[in-house]
Amino acid sequence: MSTPSSDTSLGAGAEFDLIRSMRERWGELAVGIGDDAAVLRPPRGDQLVVSTDTTLENVHFERDWISWREVGYRGVTAALSDLAAMAASPAGVLISLELPRAALDGVSDLADGIGEAVRSAGGKIVGGNVAGGEVFGMTTTVLGFAWSPLTRAGGRPGDLLYVTGALGGPGAAVRAWDAGDKPTALHRIRFAHPVARIAEARWLAARGVVAAIDISDGLGGDAGHLAAASDVAIEVQLDRVPRVAGATEDDAFSGGEEYELLLLARAPLSEAEFAERFGIPLTAIGRTIERGADVRFTRDGKRVAAPAGHDHFSR
Amino acid sequence: MSTPSSDTSLGAGAEFDLIRSMRERWGELAVGIGDDAAVLRPPRGDQLVVSTDTTLENVHFERDWISWREVGYRGVTAALSDLAAMAASPAGVLISLELPRAALDGVSDLADGIGEAVRSAGGKIVGGNVAGGEVFGMTTTVLGFAWSPLTRAGGRPGDLLYVTGALGGPGAAVRAWDAGDKPTALHRIRFAHPVARIAEARWLAARGVVAAIDISDGLGGDAGHLAAASDVAIEVQLDRVPRVAGATEDDAFSGGEEYELLLLARAPLSEAEFAERFGIPLTAIGRTIERGADVRFTRDGKRVAAPAGHDHFSR
Repeated sequence: MSTPSSDTSLGAGAEFDLIRSMRERWGELAVGIGDDAAVLRPPRGDQLVVSTDTTLENVHFERDWISWREVGYRGVTAALSDLAAMAASPAGVLISLELPRAALDGVSDLADGIGEAVRSAGGKIVGGNVAGGEVFGMTTTVLGFAWSPLTRAGGRPGDLLYVTGALGGPGAAVRAWDAGDKPTALHRIRFAHPVARIAEARWLAARGVVAAIDISDGLGGDAGHLAAASDVAIEVQLDRVPRVAGATEDDAFSGGEEYELLLLARAPLSEAEFAERFGIPLTAIGRTIERGADVRFTRDGKRVAAPAGHDHFSR
Repeated sequence: MSTPSSDTSLGAGAEFDLIRSMRERWGELAVGIGDDAAVLRPPRGDQLVVSTDTTLENVHFERDWISWREVGYRGVTAALSDLAAMAASPAGVLISLELPRAALDGVSDLADGIGEAVRSAGGKIVGGNVAGGEVFGMTTTVLGFAWSPLTRAGGRPGDLLYVTGALGGPGAAVRAWDAGDKPTALHRIRFAHPVARIAEARWLAARGVVAAIDISDGLGGDAGHLAAASDVAIEVQLDRVPRVAGATEDDAFSGGEEYELLLLARAPLSEAEFAERFGIPLTAIGRTIERGADVRFTRDGKRVAAPAGHDHFSR
């Protein structure tokens, strides 16, 4: 990776060994690692789209919830999901690891999970950093290209609100773990193995979607971000929000780290064609009403209060 | 910043407040923060140069060594230095923070230090992430552009070896702190306030420099990296290595985090012109002898053994 520091608690030799062992797991997926910085050639006319995301032990996950492979896969997918939200094609990924000694045995599995996420998104690992640390942490920076990136700000009154997939799985899984229970296999996999909707976003952007956000803070919070950026009042039909089996309305509304897409479209999208192509639902769950950032809610066609805990003005 | 997570120990509201307060400190230096990802338009024909670096409390610095402002400045400068080594122009910077509660009072100062480093390099802050954490950490990702990036691999036998600035300051400072002493003001400032040699690198790249690395692991280690990447035997004249006053030969040879540049040039460079323009020395300290990665040492014209602790094959 580009610049491993020599003064960490791991020691320089151990770090280089770690980098070498990860490189071996990655094979041709890792390119150009070893200079001070990575070099990528932008496609002519494309814009560069870049985002960064951190996953920390004891903050974003507990070690007994998921495997090291899942930690790596999930952390990279969370960052890639931001490229999906912009309808960008992933090009390069940089991985910065903070590794306590207790994590060293998991490094091969971690590398395999990182590799799986990068490979499935069609990117390459172009650099990073390894440092000793007291607690496990991974910061993933993703670089993508797009001719015309989708933003959160493209909505206007009269748009339709869509969501990909079915929500509530990650929220239900964390709820089970927090209660000392075991989540269902479906809920667990939605937490441990989310999917960045890269191909879906590009398909949708080519069919009239004008604004998008990935659901990382929860449907309620991210609808608020979309409303604020587009300066529109969004009406969410709570009874139309698709949920995975066994998830509560609150799991689907407040649970974060879904990595599904919340979209505004100027005209109706073909839900059937989307479902057939991608194997997940696309569901109309509301619309934009008027100017002025706001999120409103209906159930069975009647206006209702915001679900408990909803604070869409937190930003 | 692009995607603050909502499930950290700080709480979503506190994170957004922190981001807002840092944005206010940064003013026009922060651009486009708030969408899922940042968007940059590459200059036509330029290549994208990207690197990432992490600074961790108790690993890269101790809290009683430097101020929060210096922590921010120094962490960003370390990452920018990798762009200097590639002779790239900084464009965008992403900042990922892991903030323990004890660090919250320092956030304004930290933001000021980050801002100072980005401003002095001519870049913009385009995104990042804030998460609660148990220990302070900051991962900085830097994006730059260059028509023809300088790499470590451009050397061949017969090149001249140069170094910018005077070495040993950071090593002497850490040595003093480790011994329970107070470093001299000069040594301390070289540790706390290094300079990324951005303008110097571009000037040098236009005048016959063919390979470069920034000194982050120490002169000895980084000469080894340069030798390995260029497949050349490098001869370092130990008695010619410029040192700051009071630094030992070992401080200058083994001490890392200098962020000076180690360069190979095909023809002699004008040391006087460089010194006049940039206010720091440029010094010829050796040459490349033949093919085959190696680092050799002379003192007063005579071949000597490698200084103690030198392990240039650690990579």
